[in-house]
Amino acid sequence: MWGGRFASGPDAIMEEINASIDFDKRFYKQDIEGSKAHATMLEAAGILTKEDKDAIIKGLDQVRSEIDAGSFTFSRALEDIHMNVEARLKDLIGEPAGRLHTGRSRNDQVATDFKLYVRDTIDMFIGQIKTLQLEMVKRAEEEADTVMPGFTHLQSAQPVTFGHHMLAYVEMLGRDVSRFYGARKRLNECPLGSAALAGTSFPIDREMTAGALGFERPTANSLDAVADRDFVLEALSCASICAMHLSRLSEELVIWSTAQFRFVTLSDKFSTGSSIMPQKRNPDAAELIRAKIGRIMGALTSLMIVMKGLPLAYSKDMQEDKEVAFDAFDSLGLALAAMTGMINDLKVNREAMRDAAGSGFSTATDLADWLVREANVPFRDAHHITGAAVAKAEEKGCDLDGLTIEDLKEVDERIDSRVFKVLSVENSVKSRTSYGGTSPKNVREQAARWKEQLASSEEE
Amino acid sequence: MWGGRFASGPDAIMEEINASIDFDKRFYKQDIEGSKAHATMLEAAGILTKEDKDAIIKGLDQVRSEIDAGSFTFSRALEDIHMNVEARLKDLIGEPAGRLHTGRSRNDQVATDFKLYVRDTIDMFIGQIKTLQLEMVKRAEEEADTVMPGFTHLQSAQPVTFGHHMLAYVEMLGRDVSRFYGARKRLNECPLGSAALAGTSFPIDREMTAGALGFERPTANSLDAVADRDFVLEALSCASICAMHLSRLSEELVIWSTAQFRFVTLSDKFSTGSSIMPQKRNPDAAELIRAKIGRIMGALTSLMIVMKGLPLAYSKDMQEDKEVAFDAFDSLGLALAAMTGMINDLKVNREAMRDAAGSGFSTATDLADWLVREANVPFRDAHHITGAAVAKAEEKGCDLDGLTIEDLKEVDERIDSRVFKVLSVENSVKSRTSYGGTSPKNVREQAARWKEQLASSEEE
Amino acid sequence: MWGGRFASGPDAIMEEINASIDFDKRFYKQDIEGSKAHATMLEAAGILTKEDKDAIIKGLDQVRSEIDAGSFTFSRALEDIHMNVEARLKDLIGEPAGRLHTGRSRNDQVATDFKLYVRDTIDMFIGQIKTLQLEMVKRAEEEADTVMPGFTHLQSAQPVTFGHHMLAYVEMLGRDVSRFYGARKRLNECPLGSAALAGTSFPIDREMTAGALGFERPTANSLDAVADRDFVLEALSCASICAMHLSRLSEELVIWSTAQFRFVTLSDKFSTGSSIMPQKRNPDAAELIRAKIGRIMGALTSLMIVMKGLPLAYSKDMQEDKEVAFDAFDSLGLALAAMTGMINDLKVNREAMRDAAGSGFSTATDLADWLVREANVPFRDAHHITGAAVAKAEEKGCDLDGLTIEDLKEVDERIDSRVFKVLSVENSVKSRTSYGGTSPKNVREQAARWKEQLASSEEE
Amino acid sequence: MWGGRFASGPDAIMEEINASIDFDKRFYKQDIEGSKAHATMLEAAGILTKEDKDAIIKGLDQVRSEIDAGSFTFSRALEDIHMNVEARLKDLIGEPAGRLHTGRSRNDQVATDFKLYVRDTIDMFIGQIKTLQLEMVKRAEEEADTVMPGFTHLQSAQPVTFGHHMLAYVEMLGRDVSRFYGARKRLNECPLGSAALAGTSFPIDREMTAGALGFERPTANSLDAVADRDFVLEALSCASICAMHLSRLSEELVIWSTAQFRFVTLSDKFSTGSSIMPQKRNPDAAELIRAKIGRIMGALTSLMIVMKGLPLAYSKDMQEDKEVAFDAFDSLGLALAAMTGMINDLKVNREAMRDAAGSGFSTATDLADWLVREANVPFRDAHHITGAAVAKAEEKGCDLDGLTIEDLKEVDERIDSRVFKVLSVENSVKSRTSYGGTSPKNVREQAARWKEQLASSEEE
Repeated sequence: MWGGRFASGPDAIMEEINASIDFDKRFYKQDIEGSKAHATMLEAAGILTKEDKDAIIKGLDQVRSEIDAGSFTFSRALEDIHMNVEARLKDLIGEPAGRLHTGRSRNDQVATDFKLYVRDTIDMFIGQIKTLQLEMVKRAEEEADTVMPGFTHLQSAQPVTFGHHMLAYVEMLGRDVSRFYGARKRLNECPLGSAALAGTSFPIDREMTAGALGFERPTANSLDAVADRDFVLEALSCASICAMHLSRLSEELVIWSTAQFRFVTLSDKFSTGSSIMPQKRNPDAAELIRAKIGRIMGALTSLMIVMKGLPLAYSKDMQEDKEVAFDAFDSLGLALAAMTGMINDLKVNREAMRDAAGSGFSTATDLADWLVREANVPFRDAHHITGAAVAKAEEKGCDLDGLTIEDLKEVDERIDSRVFKVLSVENSVKSRTSYGGTSPKNVREQAARWKEQLASSEEE
Repeated sequence: MWGGRFASGPDAIMEEINASIDFDKRFYKQDIEGSKAHATMLEAAGILTKEDKDAIIKGLDQVRSEIDAGSFTFSRALEDIHMNVEARLKDLIGEPAGRLHTGRSRNDQVATDFKLYVRDTIDMFIGQIKTLQLEMVKRAEEEADTVMPGFTHLQSAQPVTFGHHMLAYVEMLGRDVSRFYGARKRLNECPLGSAALAGTSFPIDREMTAGALGFERPTANSLDAVADRDFVLEALSCASICAMHLSRLSEELVIWSTAQFRFVTLSDKFSTGSSIMPQKRNPDAAELIRAKIGRIMGALTSLMIVMKGLPLAYSKDMQEDKEVAFDAFDSLGLALAAMTGMINDLKVNREAMRDAAGSGFSTATDLADWLVREANVPFRDAHHITGAAVAKAEEKGCDLDGLTIEDLKEVDERIDSRVFKVLSVENSVKSRTSYGGTSPKNVREQAARWKEQLASSEEE
Repeated sequence: MWGGRFASGPDAIMEEINASIDFDKRFYKQDIEGSKAHATMLEAAGILTKEDKDAIIKGLDQVRSEIDAGSFTFSRALEDIHMNVEARLKDLIGEPAGRLHTGRSRNDQVATDFKLYVRDTIDMFIGQIKTLQLEMVKRAEEEADTVMPGFTHLQSAQPVTFGHHMLAYVEMLGRDVSRFYGARKRLNECPLGSAALAGTSFPIDREMTAGALGFERPTANSLDAVADRDFVLEALSCASICAMHLSRLSEELVIWSTAQFRFVTLSDKFSTGSSIMPQKRNPDAAELIRAKIGRIMGALTSLMIVMKGLPLAYSKDMQEDKEVAFDAFDSLGLALAAMTGMINDLKVNREAMRDAAGSGFSTATDLADWLVREANVPFRDAHHITGAAVAKAEEKGCDLDGLTIEDLKEVDERIDSRVFKVLSVENSVKSRTSYGGTSPKNVREQAARWKEQLASSEEE
Repeated sequence: MWGGRFASGPDAIMEEINASIDFDKRFYKQDIEGSKAHATMLEAAGILTKEDKDAIIKGLDQVRSEIDAGSFTFSRALEDIHMNVEARLKDLIGEPAGRLHTGRSRNDQVATDFKLYVRDTIDMFIGQIKTLQLEMVKRAEEEADTVMPGFTHLQSAQPVTFGHHMLAYVEMLGRDVSRFYGARKRLNECPLGSAALAGTSFPIDREMTAGALGFERPTANSLDAVADRDFVLEALSCASICAMHLSRLSEELVIWSTAQFRFVTLSDKFSTGSSIMPQKRNPDAAELIRAKIGRIMGALTSLMIVMKGLPLAYSKDMQEDKEVAFDAFDSLGLALAAMTGMINDLKVNREAMRDAAGSGFSTATDLADWLVREANVPFRDAHHITGAAVAKAEEKGCDLDGLTIEDLKEVDERIDSRVFKVLSVENSVKSRTSYGGTSPKNVREQAARWKEQLASSEEE
């Protein structure tokens, strides 16, 4: 395979550490598409005869069918997907197979394959995330009036609506989609024809192969084209951030499913039981999604370490880019699918949410704001007055709206009975009409905006 | 500061772990700009009187001057930059200071400050990277004809030009710039007015503050606005990938500066000596830049771990976002500046590069390509024939162009004396005229394209 | 040139990226101790005169006093702590200062300083962790009978005692201590005298300096001694794992402090309030401790990346080992201190815990075990029967001990009224007497064992 | 499997994300050993009859044979290895199979299995590392006199011997072994019998199962036993540090194999060729080993993130501990094997090393030391004088030993002709006799010490 200069074959351990076919066979579709585009271009450029080209295309289609059908025998001795395909092509069509590798190399081939694979993966993620967003937007509309405690530090802070909470994630996921679009756009330059590292002296037409494979243009520097993996790192970064967002919602689902919170009930489909405790219904899916950020961020760390300090152009270290990336991509794909299922099936316990929202002095800020608005008290002072009202309520063992007007006047003379209007959680959320605020009206408007946006095919 | 509900003050250790003023004072400009925009808007919305607004603006300008001048006394007891500024404002202007915090909270304030800070940092990076690119483009033009060995696996593979090698990094850095532009665009929504987490009942005008602070629009969901730090993670991802690129060039500079390679000489300005070995001239700057990827990727890891699994909205964990980000950003800023200085000062040893390029059978691929082109040999066979020619040359102790035509004919009858034309390294690089290839003509064209692009003010 | 933030030229940049004095001045004590030991040895070996040695020791003590007193002026032009100290020594004592650097180099000096620093830090951690363990053991004794729900998947699984829960962390921290002892032992070999990388031709006595500095022996290979930083990586690994343990307890404290759980109340000393919501009492300390794992693991990642692929011996990259390590060590120190304070001040709400433990069918396993024990039912079948009993209780809206004997007999004939004895949470925990089980008796025995062990000075 | 409480089965995506059998089947030996030990103990404790116990043991042996033979059908519906084994056992022996799960749970089962697996892996690593060390010690003895340049900053610093360089790695690997022993010792406590989380009311004998499985003792706290994975994190930390050491030697092998250095020639067995450049011989094995640190450190990052902030006891997140750990362990195993092969086959080019050592003023320190020793010049001054000598040699275009005595006297009067003795690289290395120094005598002694130590069966 490497010409006649090697006196002895590889050590057994060498074959094991060196061969990539066990994992890069995932690229077979991309590899064959790339070869077909290359052969077609070689003919157009006068480098291949029509007969040879036709034989090659037909042979490659055959190889593709064999792999699709599971009848292809992969060989470790042939190292990688490129050589496995080419060797089989030679079996099938003979000499012309040897003409396919003109004006290219495995270095630009693998970069092309991997870019096509990452592009496909990104397209899948974008579709998956939008599906999840749509699911959430639907829940947001359904629960636009559902009051729940808004937490900071996991302490009840101010009432919000569950719809608003859902839309917070829709925003995050929207930025995730935008990030993936950016990554896709940046990677969409075709390395094919960069050859080993220096370009080639054959009169190849790189615009043609780039176009055939859906790339926007060929890469502009052959060394860069075969030597960088920033497109994988960027895709893994986007995936890590997305997984971070999912981990947060997962954590909330786990907490909300506890007997103590009871805000939601996960469906049986996404729960599991115990081999020893028959009463258990565990939020396994949520926990597993929460954990996926580990796998994905671990992959990013791996590849960043691999790439650190590598001289140009290709080094064999870069073969370590694939397995971790595959694992990370599979993990995110699973996590998105499982989260979509869970949100779709989620039972929201409105009463439990409402009860929790109504306790813990969650409308204290509304009292402070009322003092600012109605009694022209500077906010800092209003904050202190409200603190005293909370202390009084704590002392009496009631919530803020359990205080009498006398209690309140004792705290501050300027308070009058109009204040009770702002102390209910329903009025609190309704009052939050500033742009981006939690009022049901806002939630409905934002949900409508998102539905429209998700329905359009635009990038953003 | 937190109202009257706390019976005892914080523990000493609590103050130490909790106070952020030691590091978030970096935000003072952003914090004061944000407060000025907020006050101006509050007046426009009829929430503040003109007198109060004027007093606040004047007071804030005074605080800014004091901090600029180094005469401001920061207080740990006041926790953070927001409270430090507000407390001083109160000293200066009295009651109106207490009206500034209407319709906002520290949660949206810190998110706004941090976004402004990251935006400024990104702008700085974009400027720095473009400066570095320009430096490299200049070197590429100067060295468009300088032949050096192109390496794969750090083994001589095919001759390339040093100009082409420089441009490979220009491409990588170009994608880094593009990534930073993307991150900037995505973060450029204003959190201010999201208040603690739910929005506010005051009739604030968030479009106005967003516009005043240079944001494209206000954020659309108040929970998301105060709870996410994906914009920091994305900036750190971009920075990590950029640092990865720099680490590779740094490694090359270290290797090229060895007595064994001697491809380049670093200037004294970027070298240091030894306390014990008087003859040393060490590439310290290159080594330090190489190492910076550790610091930056470490920061990304840190913050990703911090954000994992945090329920909405704000949790105090998120205070840990700043120090690591500051450290990473400072590191990249330094690395870019130092690399720019090094490239500018770099002495290229053309002869050493040329000599190295001419050894090691680096034109073997040219012989194989010649056989394909001139003798219609399939590439795979040509590759084998060339392997035999290399073996013969090794045996004779010469390079490929040291073989006689008889030697070559012994290897394969079809070779004739025209072949010698392709066996020189100069002709080899000249022949690589495929788009993106290393030929001097290509290098000049690409350098010209980049000069034009870097001169334009357009985004990418 | 670099966009406003870098006012000065490349020379300045080099100083800024290169000088380490801003952070390695932390080593001043270690550096001076090392120099004193070295000077004393040089005299004993006949390399220094007694006069010179005495002058050096006196001068070094003077330098130490100046730094202690804050009157020392550190200079960036002198790069690092070693040169700063030596330059000042020369000011103070003249020529003999120049004789101190005989038979050593900055490479072995900094390795020695850092090892001494890490050793001191480890000793501090070991003390801090033991203090925290002791605090927990005390709580464990106090709460040996306090029943709480034992969770898996954050769902109530089986009743446990709070004392048992505390002791789980005591075990984890015990392994953390053991890990730190291991790291300490492995690092405790003295690099001093390895010189730049090759050892020295001076007849130095490395056993003597090693002994004087508390090392077990000198390092056995000079290249290794100056080139490795595994001792820092190991300390950071230990710290990361310890921080992971603390993050888990912190998460629990955050959850337990919610209005929904109310298992514990954190003291005011370790809580903070809100600038906008006067009712808040936030578990800030717990959140900050939870976040520290990010900082510490980030530091480990940083240094691992820095060290990857560095050729022997010293490379300047290794200067990046300090700042991240200092930050990580400071973080763990703070986290341990804050956790100790929190546990000490923690108010345990026994009633809330007991109520939660008694709901959610937490004694279902006890029913299953009873069936195995008393009715010889295979566990798998008993598990199914119990599942049916739980379903019946759910249907009736009661807990397991709310079922009548008739209800239970309907589920399975073999159940009789003795079963009620195992259905109370108190009896459940009492029955868990297997070694390591949660019974109050076990908890008291384990607490006693730990008190004894923590009181002893043995390593473990 | 979970009793009768689940109305609907898992979603397809749930099965895919939830089932662990695809990877935890690796534990089958450990799982079956654990079950056998448990059954034997249950009989001894009077919980199982002898007949049941015998049936179980026989059945388990049968299951083991089927899996060994590849005839076992694993089922995803049965989730994991524990249920797959138990279900098959039930097929084989009927009712007694249902009695095996008495007094244990999958939580303690999987912790036991994983500990046994990690222990086996550590034992394998310790054996592999010692084999590699022995290989290196042999090379060290063979090359005790082989002079090469000792580098700092990859610049020639002082001559060392290749044997000394090998022994530097032997030291590092020695600490790696010690770390693995420490990890092994700490993990060697048996979780079995901790049951789900609280222990059990059955009178089990945990000392007995611990002993049968080779553990030193049972774990002392049931919550800790099922909830922690620090033993995996520690093993991954040890593996990462070891991989860091290997990455450094790999980097050196890559650099030393270049045409520019030519210090070593890697055997064909551990090199590969190019599909396009017939002259290439690439150090693929070294590059792949260098990259493995990414995989391994990525795994550590993954699991650390997974474990962050998990409440006690078991959460499903922890299922994500296995795949990354398996991948990391496989990677280190391969890397160690490949490195051992490479070192064994390595051809050392003594002449090239010697030539390189003799250039670059590598004995400048020897001149400085001579001045200290023979002319009583303070080292700092000697360093300056030597700098002047180097400058003069550079000017004359020769090395230090190419200067005449007149040249040297011009630099400093005190230099006399005895100095030439110290300016040869051979004398330089011979003079480094301080403990740990590079002199051939030292190298031989250290090699002998290591041979003895590696031959002994003692721990470190």
